[in-house]
Amino acid sequence: MTDSLSARIRHTIDTKTKPLGALGRIEALAEQIALVQGTTAPVMSACTLTIFAADHGIAHAGVSAFPQVVTGQMVLNFLAGGAAANVFAAVNGVGLQVVDAGVAGAPIAHPGLIDRRIAAGTANFLDAPAMSAAQARAALAHGAEIARTASGEALAFGEMGIANTATAAALAHKLTGLPLADLVGRGTGLDDAGVRHKLDVLTRATARTGPLSAEQAMAEYGGFEIVMMAGAMLETARTRRIVIVDGFIATAAATLASALDRDSRAAMVFAHKSHESGHRALLTHLGAAPLLDLDMRLGEGTGALLAWPLLKAAAAMMTDMASFETAGVSNRD
Amino acid sequence: MTDSLSARIRHTIDTKTKPLGALGRIEALAEQIALVQGTTAPVMSACTLTIFAADHGIAHAGVSAFPQVVTGQMVLNFLAGGAAANVFAAVNGVGLQVVDAGVAGAPIAHPGLIDRRIAAGTANFLDAPAMSAAQARAALAHGAEIARTASGEALAFGEMGIANTATAAALAHKLTGLPLADLVGRGTGLDDAGVRHKLDVLTRATARTGPLSAEQAMAEYGGFEIVMMAGAMLETARTRRIVIVDGFIATAAATLASALDRDSRAAMVFAHKSHESGHRALLTHLGAAPLLDLDMRLGEGTGALLAWPLLKAAAAMMTDMASFETAGVSNRD
Repeated sequence: MTDSLSARIRHTIDTKTKPLGALGRIEALAEQIALVQGTTAPVMSACTLTIFAADHGIAHAGVSAFPQVVTGQMVLNFLAGGAAANVFAAVNGVGLQVVDAGVAGAPIAHPGLIDRRIAAGTANFLDAPAMSAAQARAALAHGAEIARTASGEALAFGEMGIANTATAAALAHKLTGLPLADLVGRGTGLDDAGVRHKLDVLTRATARTGPLSAEQAMAEYGGFEIVMMAGAMLETARTRRIVIVDGFIATAAATLASALDRDSRAAMVFAHKSHESGHRALLTHLGAAPLLDLDMRLGEGTGALLAWPLLKAAAAMMTDMASFETAGVSNRD
Repeated sequence: MTDSLSARIRHTIDTKTKPLGALGRIEALAEQIALVQGTTAPVMSACTLTIFAADHGIAHAGVSAFPQVVTGQMVLNFLAGGAAANVFAAVNGVGLQVVDAGVAGAPIAHPGLIDRRIAAGTANFLDAPAMSAAQARAALAHGAEIARTASGEALAFGEMGIANTATAAALAHKLTGLPLADLVGRGTGLDDAGVRHKLDVLTRATARTGPLSAEQAMAEYGGFEIVMMAGAMLETARTRRIVIVDGFIATAAATLASALDRDSRAAMVFAHKSHESGHRALLTHLGAAPLLDLDMRLGEGTGALLAWPLLKAAAAMMTDMASFETAGVSNRD
């Protein structure tokens, strides 16, 4: 049946009033959306962005340009509507919710915050596993539950967590075998010496363990927000909705999700190519070609939010555009 | 004063709650919009797409994969709401109007169509000037008047005209001196032999004249829709609004507008890199880095429509995003 659906989708696209293939990647995107929804008339009417925030023990090894306290401050900024993600979500009509997956310090008391704290930040994985196997499983389960209740035919996921490019690099290295040097970048703004230090720290940290399964890797090197996001991605794909993957951290979560369930990959749309240098290596590993390339490296789901209108346009092309026949337009000679 | 405004704009962007430069090209876009509007608090609330349609005498030299009758048929498709441009405009909340700048055959009777017909298609510029100097001036003036009455802080322009990639290539060659071979592409779907024939036709056609001023070039090799679009672009820039430049044809119009008034270039945002091969050469000539690269080659303003949400996001970043100070977020160490 899938082959036949695929052929019908391609036929629908090819008989629209445009030269064959003239909408380029929008056509490929429409095809993917239609296949995930199992129809030639896909719908993209609503999207929710969930931002998962958490802290990272590895921050204590001096791998970020910003202090750890910023994670909690930015959670409050999201809740107050002042962050880039809020602004882009409002402009594009996307709902936004914020999850405390494990921010350091005392719990943040705010009625708008979704509390799924696993702990007050992970342990420093330079010396010990970031979290226990039970904590990792709990994070996956919370992510799945959040995806189940989020509304929209597509779900976007963002993150906030000081030092989480370090976490993402270590986890991605263990999951993919890609060289750490290809995965380590400037994060929020390290200078060259800072990047060398970060690489040195991560080299030592990842040497602490041998080859790991995906389950082991997520506990040893995961962040609470990354594992929870992977759980949300898996559930989104399982319920035949589109996963909009943001930048480097979100792509590390997508790599984890793919490693845990290969079938989830088909539901993933990669929003943008981050300026964070490790992103390119990870995208290549996943065979992913992101839609946008705007030199952004903010996280929070900002890239995913900017890609959402492209998904709406792709789906609307399938349902709202005329065919040569219905419009009375002559096809090529 | 401009330097001081420029510094204030940069300061506004740099104190937003994000690492320095982390929004990449959205920041540069915000800067451009703010400079055009002359404020640190720019507004991007509305956009109108105007589609200019016209026919081309050069079509009779067999340079397109589609018959000339399609131009008028597509005008009716735009008016009925069935084209890709209609669908993308609706998805992104952009108004759409259609102008008959000189479609072949009898005038199209439709209450929704804006009639600014210069003639029933241009002459075949293989043998004679495409239009008279007076017709070219009339087209520019109609374009300016249309831009004056179109609403929005940004105006997008699209086109429809069988064989207009041939016209755009000839005109761009005369305006820029770029080799024809770099400007000639497949259009709506020529095969290799078709592209060779098109290049041969355009080589002969452009050898008919020597060096030309921009005014001369637009009359000798212009299309009514291209010259009218250039007039609209000039007026949009003059009234300090943003010009959203679509693909290859629109970029040829932008090249003409820049040649007629260099100051207009500052108001132009280049929406996307078309798959039409000549587009890259023309963008390089203009020093333009388009926002999107989606392998599209449809025209109609479809690329411009997909870029519009990025302009809204960039302006909203300036006005709606919190600063480190107002949000109480710590800046980097």
